[in-house]
Amino acid sequence: MTTRILTGITTTGTPHLGNYAGAIRPAIVASRQSDADSFYFLADYHALIKCDDPQRIQRSRLEIAATWLAFGLDTDRVTFYRQSDIPEIPELTWLLTCVAGKGLLNRAHAYKAAVDKNSENGEDPDAGVTMGLFSYPVLMAADILMFNAHKVPVGRDQIQHVEMARDIAQRFNHLFGQGREFFTLPEAVIEESVATLPGLDGRKMSKSYDNTIPLFGSAKQLKDAIARIVTDSRAPGEPKDPDNSHLFTLYQAFSTPAQQAEFRQQLLEGLAWGEAKQRLFELLEGELGEARERYRQLIEKPSELEDILHAGAANARRIATPFLQELREAVGLRSFRSEVQSTTKAKKKGGKSARFVSFREQDGSFRFRFLAADGEQLLLSRPFADPKAVGVVTQQLVGQGADALELRADEVNQFTLWLDGECIADSPAYDDVADRDAAMLRLHTAVATLASA
Amino acid sequence: MTTRILTGITTTGTPHLGNYAGAIRPAIVASRQSDADSFYFLADYHALIKCDDPQRIQRSRLEIAATWLAFGLDTDRVTFYRQSDIPEIPELTWLLTCVAGKGLLNRAHAYKAAVDKNSENGEDPDAGVTMGLFSYPVLMAADILMFNAHKVPVGRDQIQHVEMARDIAQRFNHLFGQGREFFTLPEAVIEESVATLPGLDGRKMSKSYDNTIPLFGSAKQLKDAIARIVTDSRAPGEPKDPDNSHLFTLYQAFSTPAQQAEFRQQLLEGLAWGEAKQRLFELLEGELGEARERYRQLIEKPSELEDILHAGAANARRIATPFLQELREAVGLRSFRSEVQSTTKAKKKGGKSARFVSFREQDGSFRFRFLAADGEQLLLSRPFADPKAVGVVTQQLVGQGADALELRADEVNQFTLWLDGECIADSPAYDDVADRDAAMLRLHTAVATLASA
Repeated sequence: MTTRILTGITTTGTPHLGNYAGAIRPAIVASRQSDADSFYFLADYHALIKCDDPQRIQRSRLEIAATWLAFGLDTDRVTFYRQSDIPEIPELTWLLTCVAGKGLLNRAHAYKAAVDKNSENGEDPDAGVTMGLFSYPVLMAADILMFNAHKVPVGRDQIQHVEMARDIAQRFNHLFGQGREFFTLPEAVIEESVATLPGLDGRKMSKSYDNTIPLFGSAKQLKDAIARIVTDSRAPGEPKDPDNSHLFTLYQAFSTPAQQAEFRQQLLEGLAWGEAKQRLFELLEGELGEARERYRQLIEKPSELEDILHAGAANARRIATPFLQELREAVGLRSFRSEVQSTTKAKKKGGKSARFVSFREQDGSFRFRFLAADGEQLLLSRPFADPKAVGVVTQQLVGQGADALELRADEVNQFTLWLDGECIADSPAYDDVADRDAAMLRLHTAVATLASA
Repeated sequence: MTTRILTGITTTGTPHLGNYAGAIRPAIVASRQSDADSFYFLADYHALIKCDDPQRIQRSRLEIAATWLAFGLDTDRVTFYRQSDIPEIPELTWLLTCVAGKGLLNRAHAYKAAVDKNSENGEDPDAGVTMGLFSYPVLMAADILMFNAHKVPVGRDQIQHVEMARDIAQRFNHLFGQGREFFTLPEAVIEESVATLPGLDGRKMSKSYDNTIPLFGSAKQLKDAIARIVTDSRAPGEPKDPDNSHLFTLYQAFSTPAQQAEFRQQLLEGLAWGEAKQRLFELLEGELGEARERYRQLIEKPSELEDILHAGAANARRIATPFLQELREAVGLRSFRSEVQSTTKAKKKGGKSARFVSFREQDGSFRFRFLAADGEQLLLSRPFADPKAVGVVTQQLVGQGADALELRADEVNQFTLWLDGECIADSPAYDDVADRDAAMLRLHTAVATLASA
């Protein structure tokens, strides 16, 4: 079974070398694991909480998208999208808002930290606290639950928010699932081994300390930043102490063990700091040069970046749109058309049989779902031009029963329904072949029951 | 200038006679005023806060929609839609969440009432309080501000929430407007004269007192309910006191002054209570009978109701979709394509000139906006199949300047741009002819400036 892994990337700054080593590089490595179904998104709705500078948000989204792609994020393998291109996310946020306890949010670390700071300063506890800051764990729950992610790689400070997403998911499942677990309970994954890169002054590399090394400046900017790395005052020829030099720590983060051993030896033998900085520059230039070139090409063609993210959003919405539809139906936001159908069925069969539910799309086309007796969606039809065409097909299926079922399994653990040589409807995507085959069996049974009724 | 009036209708129950007299009837009368541009919506996202019974929500939406239409709400004159059919509303809710102060929400009456009740019972202040209850004034602000409503008719308990919407609107205008007032500041309108109808027992008619008179039950159900009206024990022939009889109050709410005077006289002369109830029954049957018939026809054809509400949602989204797009751009959630354009322009003209911004729609088509130097949207193009076609048109406009502008004003205070006999782009809808004409002038000036640059 593949594991769905979801990673949000905040979009309020320009990525630096520390972000690359600590977050981007390990995430891209992880995305290449064959059993991973990875989702990466630019968390730009989240960015609005902390940043009311539109230019900065826009620029940061562009830079971050280009950075991840320049380092080789493979959008054929992973789903890469902007949060704000998925309108299902704010809608799910509201559905979850209605089940999330306020008491739960009162306990969120980020909010409590703001309250503590206000109290220390003798201010009103909620001074300067926006509803965005207070309620963002609900948005984060929507990010995760929208795609039923199994695992969410986060820093320690975010573990609690993933637990809140579990809590909210459980509550929704309990209230509306009627035995069905709509939401997978996500797990936080802590990357214990992630290197926190030191900055120029030896403290953690961070924009707020103004001690960062740029990722994609020019070679000269990279050189200038490295020249500013603070070292001790040992003269050329004097032995240096690699284990107390953050220049060496920086070198370690991007070199092979053999390179590290050689560099360590040279420092012990008295390599001048100026020379050592030149070595670090060459190392980083080797690591970053190629990506920098790709980055420039990308950033100069924002239209292409837009297309890539649009395609990612379309992929994400192939999951989000039908899933949100099911969630809406679960809470009672249903088409009045399904009211007719379910009322009719309920009278006839006590509401317990499988059923077709037809509905109209926003674009004016018509579709049907085929639901098992327990409400599980077994098929979603392709669009039809008018409701009559839907009626003809569903009547044919009811009339002929399981005999009419020409099902074709495909390689992505889905199957399709064909009628007179035309593909009529699609199953959901299942986790693996076994799940898919079990669903095909359930479909056969349900159609047979319906036809014999 | 027309006044835009927005009214939300909660969808958790079945409307009764008290709802009709207190809310539905006056609202429908108000919707017929010629200077009113009325929006009525089924507040089903709000319903989720109080109700986790999907059947009840679904049923209530259907019944309420049918009730309003049965009483003659004219969907050719007003915009009538389900809140949950407007995905722009939850998205705007998030944008507003990021600017709303938590301290503001702490003071909301509904929330404070829940806290007070918990405190009285020795519970945790937030026991049983969901985030939905806590944050719903933000959703309500989105309902109002999405359509820039001028007036919002509400009960006294909701005045505060309209004030919160003003507060949130001002904050957003201030942070992101750059001189432009995105949001109109709404005003609460209190219907002082609204009759609170007494129920069967004389207390306010309310479902929670189980003292309601059904609107659209059978004639027999109406008769049975009226038979249950509590009266005093005066015998037939004994004079009755109309001013202390809620049967008389009920009669008053649906009769002409002449009918009231006659009924009062008869009661004073000793009309039997049984006879008085028969009179009330006849009066209500006259008021409700026709609407009941229309209601039944509507409720039996939920597909038609669905179509009516879909059409209403489509009308509402003609406003909501482009407006949300502007708000997204204001906060920084912009297409990367507009990044290219605005960067290019900014270099050339210090970012101060009018400009074309092209973008791709979700459906793959392309459009452009024409923005004045201050960012005001003057035109939104019809969809084009590809970006080249957009380029051809915009080049033509830039090249030929104001000479190329064939503008046609229409009767709904909009105008369109024509090129070679084809309608290319639409202006926003303006409040009146003067506003529209002023905008046409601004467009001319902007295009002329652009062409001469």
